[in-house]
Amino acid sequence: MKKRYIIPMVTALALVPTLGAAQDAEFATLADTTFIFNTLLFLIGGFLVFWMAAGFAMLEAGLVRSKNVTTQLTKNIALFAIAAIMYWLIGYNIMYPGDGNWIIQDVFGSIGTKDIKSEIDAGGYSNASDFFFQLMFCATTASIVSGTLAERIKLWPFLIFVVVLTGVIYPIEASWQWGAGFLANMGFSDFAGSTLVHAAGGFAALAGAIVLGPRLGKYNKEGRVIPMPGSNLALATLGTFILWLGWFGFNGASQLAMGTISDVDAVAQIFANTNMAAAAGAVAALILTQMLYGKVDLTMVLNGALAGLVSITAGPLDPTLFGALWIGAVGGVIVVFAVPFLDKLKIDDVVGAIPVHLIAGFWGTLVVPVYTADTSFVTQIIGFGAVGGFVFIVSFIVWTILKATVGIRVSEEAEINGLDMSELGMEAYPEFSKG
Amino acid sequence: MKKRYIIPMVTALALVPTLGAAQDAEFATLADTTFIFNTLLFLIGGFLVFWMAAGFAMLEAGLVRSKNVTTQLTKNIALFAIAAIMYWLIGYNIMYPGDGNWIIQDVFGSIGTKDIKSEIDAGGYSNASDFFFQLMFCATTASIVSGTLAERIKLWPFLIFVVVLTGVIYPIEASWQWGAGFLANMGFSDFAGSTLVHAAGGFAALAGAIVLGPRLGKYNKEGRVIPMPGSNLALATLGTFILWLGWFGFNGASQLAMGTISDVDAVAQIFANTNMAAAAGAVAALILTQMLYGKVDLTMVLNGALAGLVSITAGPLDPTLFGALWIGAVGGVIVVFAVPFLDKLKIDDVVGAIPVHLIAGFWGTLVVPVYTADTSFVTQIIGFGAVGGFVFIVSFIVWTILKATVGIRVSEEAEINGLDMSELGMEAYPEFSKG
Amino acid sequence: MKKRYIIPMVTALALVPTLGAAQDAEFATLADTTFIFNTLLFLIGGFLVFWMAAGFAMLEAGLVRSKNVTTQLTKNIALFAIAAIMYWLIGYNIMYPGDGNWIIQDVFGSIGTKDIKSEIDAGGYSNASDFFFQLMFCATTASIVSGTLAERIKLWPFLIFVVVLTGVIYPIEASWQWGAGFLANMGFSDFAGSTLVHAAGGFAALAGAIVLGPRLGKYNKEGRVIPMPGSNLALATLGTFILWLGWFGFNGASQLAMGTISDVDAVAQIFANTNMAAAAGAVAALILTQMLYGKVDLTMVLNGALAGLVSITAGPLDPTLFGALWIGAVGGVIVVFAVPFLDKLKIDDVVGAIPVHLIAGFWGTLVVPVYTADTSFVTQIIGFGAVGGFVFIVSFIVWTILKATVGIRVSEEAEINGLDMSELGMEAYPEFSKG
Repeated sequence: MKKRYIIPMVTALALVPTLGAAQDAEFATLADTTFIFNTLLFLIGGFLVFWMAAGFAMLEAGLVRSKNVTTQLTKNIALFAIAAIMYWLIGYNIMYPGDGNWIIQDVFGSIGTKDIKSEIDAGGYSNASDFFFQLMFCATTASIVSGTLAERIKLWPFLIFVVVLTGVIYPIEASWQWGAGFLANMGFSDFAGSTLVHAAGGFAALAGAIVLGPRLGKYNKEGRVIPMPGSNLALATLGTFILWLGWFGFNGASQLAMGTISDVDAVAQIFANTNMAAAAGAVAALILTQMLYGKVDLTMVLNGALAGLVSITAGPLDPTLFGALWIGAVGGVIVVFAVPFLDKLKIDDVVGAIPVHLIAGFWGTLVVPVYTADTSFVTQIIGFGAVGGFVFIVSFIVWTILKATVGIRVSEEAEINGLDMSELGMEAYPEFSKG
Repeated sequence: MKKRYIIPMVTALALVPTLGAAQDAEFATLADTTFIFNTLLFLIGGFLVFWMAAGFAMLEAGLVRSKNVTTQLTKNIALFAIAAIMYWLIGYNIMYPGDGNWIIQDVFGSIGTKDIKSEIDAGGYSNASDFFFQLMFCATTASIVSGTLAERIKLWPFLIFVVVLTGVIYPIEASWQWGAGFLANMGFSDFAGSTLVHAAGGFAALAGAIVLGPRLGKYNKEGRVIPMPGSNLALATLGTFILWLGWFGFNGASQLAMGTISDVDAVAQIFANTNMAAAAGAVAALILTQMLYGKVDLTMVLNGALAGLVSITAGPLDPTLFGALWIGAVGGVIVVFAVPFLDKLKIDDVVGAIPVHLIAGFWGTLVVPVYTADTSFVTQIIGFGAVGGFVFIVSFIVWTILKATVGIRVSEEAEINGLDMSELGMEAYPEFSKG
Repeated sequence: MKKRYIIPMVTALALVPTLGAAQDAEFATLADTTFIFNTLLFLIGGFLVFWMAAGFAMLEAGLVRSKNVTTQLTKNIALFAIAAIMYWLIGYNIMYPGDGNWIIQDVFGSIGTKDIKSEIDAGGYSNASDFFFQLMFCATTASIVSGTLAERIKLWPFLIFVVVLTGVIYPIEASWQWGAGFLANMGFSDFAGSTLVHAAGGFAALAGAIVLGPRLGKYNKEGRVIPMPGSNLALATLGTFILWLGWFGFNGASQLAMGTISDVDAVAQIFANTNMAAAAGAVAALILTQMLYGKVDLTMVLNGALAGLVSITAGPLDPTLFGALWIGAVGGVIVVFAVPFLDKLKIDDVVGAIPVHLIAGFWGTLVVPVYTADTSFVTQIIGFGAVGGFVFIVSFIVWTILKATVGIRVSEEAEINGLDMSELGMEAYPEFSKG
């Protein structure tokens, strides 16, 4: 029991001799302060990346038509919850194989006994904080998929895919790099996950979009693309701001340490660069849509900002601010051209997640060697290809099995009426009549 | 005056000899770093719990019908503002009686003189940060009440109740435990407030719901429950994500210290457990509503996540992750059964706050001894009963007095037309026609 | 390349001898911990102030009519992105002239070389974190302008004004105080920017409103004010909560340091005072609108909270909590009277930004000497006048030039049809029919 009235300092002082190497309790030991700073970075970073789950939910709820909003919201909160469980049950263990089967001990340990997560890591941070932080990246990967497949996929098959993605697919490919696997040994560089998280999510989405097919009426017989505007651009903009905010944690806390001047300075540079890349992506899309179409396209500006963020994610520390600017700006340009290009291929990506996360993720991964020493374009391409190939193929197989067994697509009638009534029987905005 | 150009380091170095026990200014003293870390935890935790006020506002605005949205928003921002003032004016002093009448000194102190809040607490954190943090818990208790009573209560009587709740009722019962009162001495255990905040808010809401009665037409003559679907599930989902985020501060910063390795590791474990419990609550409601009703109910999933959070709040540190999972999952199950059960009793709880906060709060309080040493089921039940009984009875009396004097319910006509036009003359969505 | 598997502690320990003055690596040096704490304060403060950009976007999107929402959202995300680039390109250099032309080095430095931003500041914090934090204040100034001019201004001329405001106008006037300029030397006191940010934004908006003129039909021939209610008060309330949250960073991190007990205690007091002023502003508007109009006006309560926040911003540290209460309450009162007063002058301020930011900003600046030593009312008025005069005149000239050249106002037809269709061809809520 923790009483709020008890003075914590007493405990603190009493604990010191047993925890640090200090012979003199008057001074803070470096081991202690480093541990605390590093853990705090994971916690702040973790809650910021958690917040991105809300960002995806709002972005996607804003970009689908109102008849599919409840379903999209349900998928987003459910996928996060499933990711949280699957990553604990299987994923974390797969991703960091050297850490032993601590989850098994947790599940099957005697009730009331503290599990291994409470052990103090020799490396200077709390294991629990690392788990909390890493979990959020796994969930983000799943969030990326839900937007692409909106408005025609069944709820449960989607959630089954999330189980596989967050429990197995993501942990395997992320382990290749962050679990000290073969990509790390090759010299592949992906600081916070342009490839491992964003492109991976994008490839899983791409496989799903191909197996699932486009929405009814999206591409008519003359090959024209029929616009299906999002129902609530205020939500979509809110979602983008949320994602932008969360990205400071996503990239910044991927420094993994802030217990030294050089580490915290690195975190600060990452914050500044991340912001700059997002801004440049937004401005690039703003100007480019004006030039191309004679008017600004808000959804492109939003996706431009996100593409800028994805573009800087593979290497947010090393570029100068000017570097972050042009890297992010190219991300924004990519989106403006990639969205119609995908439509040409009749790949129906409802929210533009494939351009933003996969294609800008490729760009961000590719550009790393311009600013980061000891990296090479070839290795970057190999790493991207390995992750992309693996995720795409496995995802394609899983989607195909799901299609052949339980089916992944709602009926035509259900799609026309909207998934909210047909799948869930609950409208998101029941009182607002449709225009 | 603080100039941004002046180098803060100069000040820092100059101040050290007078503040810490350091004889050698080269090293950071443990007293200083502990103080800073602890205070920082309160500040981060405090702003996260503040954010929960926005979460309640969005959740409730999304779950009421559009004709009552402006009123619900007004109640939510007003109750927070009132709580902030009342807790300062009376509540904090009642809750921590040993601290002396510092508020009185603040109010009546000579203008320009610094009040006692600027004194440095001997216990290793800033008094002001503690006040800031504790205030947010008081406000949360009030936020819980507003959802239950939505769509038929008058604005001002509700706000008068908030004055009493945040100035007197909450501080008294919270003092029993966190102010080193009799519950603390008995060995009652409520780490972050499953009972003291959530169940207390739930009991105040329950008393109000009984005195106020159900909405017109909610229960028809044949005893059937008439669904009155929320007007904006995107807002409700946003509110849930906000609450989930804020809960990291709610539970995590209730460790009250992070100046040592063991404290910050505890905070990290609390973050991980809190997230797990929410995820498990959401998944439990997801699966259970599918099984019971043949389709997923998003509002149940949202409330399942919240119930998972409430369930882990009484003891977020000691359970393993597996413990957090099943504790949270039971919370989610509770909600799915408790919502229709309350309707059977014709207690009209518009947003499901009583199942989420009171009933899951009981569950969370009850389950503590499974993982936490030196606690007992009997003591937990006694503590819950004492708080619940006190809050319910006092709230019932206050609601009854309000009903007998100023009246607490709007007229039938006003209820049918919606409180926004009848009470405030301002619609939340004036341009969107009703379906 | 940063591998997540490598133990950061090893690096940390290895780096210590070269970074701090420590001869004994066992203890944390004061220079290191101070640097880390200060930098962390800038980063947390920075992301909170970033979040205010989302708050302005939601507030304004909620307070305009639905036919102008997409445009308002576009302006808000675009202005932030432009501010981020302009402040880097020109603004930061103008504001802190003593720091040398590091941006120039950044832009024209050889690719791959780290720019000066990575140098460790002698003053105990990361330059990059300072840049990140200061940038957010520049962007906030621009955010204030967009609300006032909503519903009739053309997108691109507005964005051109933002270029000038964030690149030149704000940096010049902010430099007078925070860049150790003549106002700082005079003894002017503006802790976090009641004048430098809020009133400056308000004056830029006022100049624009005068040059632009009111919306069609806002003031009819009999001199009556025609209400044009906001389309989504849930969004407006969300925006207010976001701003309130962000303000903890805005004011709190303006302490610029938390590496000592006295600094972090100051940050905590600022948090508590900031919250109190907002609460008092909201309650004042709540009670006053009830008294004046016989019913509560939610938009006034929201603006009352914001005015409370602006009021405390010039001096959030020195007042007691009671001081923060009455200072904030007067801010709330100001808004209730200033909004109709502006309408009398036929200055059409769509969201009430001039009352909130300019007039309450004046109040907050003026009241500083009541609690802060070594300040005078005369100096406060002179400082406010200097900033206000400069910003107003330069802004007026820029708006006039824009009007005379490219034009700043959409056609009558476009205004009646809404800017979303006429300027952008994209509705924010395409499926919801208008009432």
